[in-house]
Amino acid sequence: MTLQQLSLPVIGHVISPRAEVSDDYWGGVQSIIRLVPELPLDTLEGLDAFSHLQVVFKFHLAQPEDIHLGARSPRGNPEWDPTGTFVHRNHRRPAQIGISHPRLIKVEGRDIHVKDLDAVNATPVIDLAPWFEQFGPRGAVQQPAWPGDMLGDYWTAQ
Amino acid sequence: MTLQQLSLPVIGHVISPRAEVSDDYWGGVQSIIRLVPELPLDTLEGLDAFSHLQVVFKFHLAQPEDIHLGARSPRGNPEWDPTGTFVHRNHRRPAQIGISHPRLIKVEGRDIHVKDLDAVNATPVIDLAPWFEQFGPRGAVQQPAWPGDMLGDYWTAQ
Repeated sequence: MTLQQLSLPVIGHVISPRAEVSDDYWGGVQSIIRLVPELPLDTLEGLDAFSHLQVVFKFHLAQPEDIHLGARSPRGNPEWDPTGTFVHRNHRRPAQIGISHPRLIKVEGRDIHVKDLDAVNATPVIDLAPWFEQFGPRGAVQQPAWPGDMLGDYWTAQ
Repeated sequence: MTLQQLSLPVIGHVISPRAEVSDDYWGGVQSIIRLVPELPLDTLEGLDAFSHLQVVFKFHLAQPEDIHLGARSPRGNPEWDPTGTFVHRNHRRPAQIGISHPRLIKVEGRDIHVKDLDAVNATPVIDLAPWFEQFGPRGAVQQPAWPGDMLGDYWTAQ
């Protein structure tokens, strides 16, 4: 597969107590997004007025050969029907990026303290922004049953 | 500014009636995300069971020199206090990407028909996934007043 490529920057890294990739038990995890020193501090001015962030990060422990183009059962569990690469939220997608919406605790210099960021230690961060209510999904949200079944322990504390 | 760079793929393009960048009046806009032909159709299998998507795209009309590292008043309006690069949601951020949450209308072959996608025609798409309720912001969301003031006409129909 050869797709056109774009170049995107690393603006920071995650400092987390979680060093290993895990499917579950992300509840209550506190971590830090540390901005790279090349970026001035006033790029974060006013961030602390928001309760949540939207963070784009690279699944840096994934290998290019982990990319899977097709349909698979979620978590390889045949109980759930196979769904496509773009219907999951994992490292098998071409971009190998994740997007999370952690709670912002505080900003201290270039350290952004957050809760519920499901990214392991040393994860490169590509972008971050506040969560703006106006830019979330509009109208009633619907989804099938399998994500709820699959994610029963996702936010359980370890 | 020299930041470490990552390489991310283009998985599709936006086909939209909106050719020009606009701050407002995105309400009701219908567009298509067309997957590149290199990607097999079963990467989308099961997507149509979800009501909304999360779409990552490149602000491809922006220039590298548009990046602004510091604090600015939203939309340059001095009525609002300056806030930092990462507190906005525009093309002045280092990654020059946007993230939107359009409503999914239907999937037809490699065409994903959506509503409320605030990206202009020919926008390169880097990634897409369903909107999973479980991965949205957890707990009460708070934000300052300025985004609501600024975005009064964002979703107004043109």
